[in-house]
Amino acid sequence: MTTDVRTPVAIVGAGPAGLLLSHLLQASGIDSIVFDSRSRDEIEHTIRAGILEQATVELLTQSGASDRVLTVGSRHDGVELRFDGAGHRIDFADLVGRGVWLYPQHEVLKDLIAARLAAGQDIRFETTVDAVTEADSTTPHVHATSADGTVLDVTADVVVGSDGSHSVVRRTVSPDGGYFREYPFAWFGILCEAPPSADELIYSTTDAGFALISQRSPSVQRMYFQCDPDADPDALGEREIWDILQSRVPGTTLSEGPIFQRDVLRFRSYVARQLRAGRVVLAGDAAHTVPPTGAKGMNLAVADVVLLHQALDALLNRGDEGLLDRYAETASARIWKAQHFSWWMTSMLHSAPDASEFDDRRRHAELRTVVESRAGREYLAEAYTGWPHATF
Amino acid sequence: MTTDVRTPVAIVGAGPAGLLLSHLLQASGIDSIVFDSRSRDEIEHTIRAGILEQATVELLTQSGASDRVLTVGSRHDGVELRFDGAGHRIDFADLVGRGVWLYPQHEVLKDLIAARLAAGQDIRFETTVDAVTEADSTTPHVHATSADGTVLDVTADVVVGSDGSHSVVRRTVSPDGGYFREYPFAWFGILCEAPPSADELIYSTTDAGFALISQRSPSVQRMYFQCDPDADPDALGEREIWDILQSRVPGTTLSEGPIFQRDVLRFRSYVARQLRAGRVVLAGDAAHTVPPTGAKGMNLAVADVVLLHQALDALLNRGDEGLLDRYAETASARIWKAQHFSWWMTSMLHSAPDASEFDDRRRHAELRTVVESRAGREYLAEAYTGWPHATF
Repeated sequence: MTTDVRTPVAIVGAGPAGLLLSHLLQASGIDSIVFDSRSRDEIEHTIRAGILEQATVELLTQSGASDRVLTVGSRHDGVELRFDGAGHRIDFADLVGRGVWLYPQHEVLKDLIAARLAAGQDIRFETTVDAVTEADSTTPHVHATSADGTVLDVTADVVVGSDGSHSVVRRTVSPDGGYFREYPFAWFGILCEAPPSADELIYSTTDAGFALISQRSPSVQRMYFQCDPDADPDALGEREIWDILQSRVPGTTLSEGPIFQRDVLRFRSYVARQLRAGRVVLAGDAAHTVPPTGAKGMNLAVADVVLLHQALDALLNRGDEGLLDRYAETASARIWKAQHFSWWMTSMLHSAPDASEFDDRRRHAELRTVVESRAGREYLAEAYTGWPHATF
Repeated sequence: MTTDVRTPVAIVGAGPAGLLLSHLLQASGIDSIVFDSRSRDEIEHTIRAGILEQATVELLTQSGASDRVLTVGSRHDGVELRFDGAGHRIDFADLVGRGVWLYPQHEVLKDLIAARLAAGQDIRFETTVDAVTEADSTTPHVHATSADGTVLDVTADVVVGSDGSHSVVRRTVSPDGGYFREYPFAWFGILCEAPPSADELIYSTTDAGFALISQRSPSVQRMYFQCDPDADPDALGEREIWDILQSRVPGTTLSEGPIFQRDVLRFRSYVARQLRAGRVVLAGDAAHTVPPTGAKGMNLAVADVVLLHQALDALLNRGDEGLLDRYAETASARIWKAQHFSWWMTSMLHSAPDASEFDDRRRHAELRTVVESRAGREYLAEAYTGWPHATF
């Protein structure tokens, strides 16, 4: 039993990229349907990244997607780099006149889902996309199966693959895979019930390894420490976890509390070779993955969507495919800069298992060179708070 | 037959570090003797580095060591980074209000040797130092042999090892060796009789490898291209050399001319574990080696000497050993920053043999991030033109 569906834009994946694109398209008078294999509840409760660039926040608020970011989220005007026993603040406000917002990704998703449903837009939860076909025609198809077993044959003018790092759509767009790098690093992340241990993020590198002290809310905190990529998140007791964390932020006494979630994040860099095949395009994690250091993942997805929104507006409202033709090249410029920044922050703050004494001393000298120079701090702050969004 | 010699400061090595130190000490009323296994002629005609930081030039001119740097040398207010088919100028004058000087190291050495001899100071050419002993006493000894076979037993208050990367003095100061890194890169360098092909240095990275277009004088040019570290400098014909160079600076037509010198420079980073043992200290290449990208070698030697001059003035004129006690730590701060800068310029401009496609694209994105950002260009320009000399 197959049901035929028609939509101008079929969006695969109800993450930040897909939902935000749907929201922006509607403001341009373009309807879309968003498909996701997960339930709404799962999407709204999966803990992910939590730092938004200023331009991301401006887009969310100005487009009416979220005001809660300004009230529930909190603005951070800097971060601290800590090494060799001393902390060095990167003062974003002073250096570049911009800031970042701490606002968890699942809160962004709640806002966007609520806005989509309130606007009467169609989100198909628990609907698994099996394949995308006819990319080279003007009517690509999405083949999907809903939770009740209904098979959907979706005909669209454009299909957007925003279905994350295990993207199904990517098989159609970039069959040759992508540019890839794995790191010998991982983060052991926890969520705990405790007051904040610091006002801003602390990126701390010690001889024993890296730690990141982050926040979530006045009563819930997010912290990470560098671990073996093969570490079992359940193998450590709470006392051991706190002892490791405490030892990696010398100079700060962490406020401890019950740990209610733990996970191991492996570090990968990935960029799909192709971001577009005919009328099928990729955005967000489906197109690229960055290691978490530097917090670029969700922000890069948003930057893709800013371009895609313009390109689809031109195509579907004015019949002009020219911007879509330039989407891959234009988006790539920022994608690779963000890949570099994520690699740089990762490399500068983590000691590799095979690092020589020279390598580690060189790395500490790099940290020192950056923090001792206003230009160095500014260069870092520009990237961390986010380059301006490109337009065509 | 042993001859006893007494001097306040025995300086091993008549390179930039040793000769400049001798010059500065004399201005403070402290005599020294400089020993070198090479002849004066050899020292004055070995082609080495040629870029002086602004602070190096200021020291040479203000101390009376060289005025020729201002007339024979030429000030450069920028360099060009070339990649992806386009050149990007790093405008030192605009970014940091400083510059660098093109003035070959052997010209510096000619100036310093002439100044030393004119001042009646003692330079022992063709005198080989065999060992340094009694470092922990207040009268360390240098054991040397002159060209005529005379054995010298030199008693000094302080012995300075400025005897280059194959330092003999280092055996006494840093018996455990040093922090070390080798690179899978080398430069094939040429000197040729031709007019300049560009007004400033061009650092060019292409898919085929790196090239550096440098200058020496209106009629002699210095150029380099990345080659295999095991390359035989005599294996290539002149036509092949020019073809390689031309292909690596797309957009510029090089002015060709007879090639009269060629060499292969291997890339190494090294820092001795100890820079001081009692009354014996290291300076310049004896203490540290950097790869040539970024031109830090001679400038770093000069920065060591600025500190050593102050420390020996305090010790020998005022009996205060406190500055000498802090020499190693104070010098190390700049040494490691220069190691980082040299590593950074090297890594950013060369493709490693085992680089993945991801690595090369990440590297090009780094170049783009730097040149597109005023802060990025300024951060590079600060390091290239040289951080201010430290004082105690």
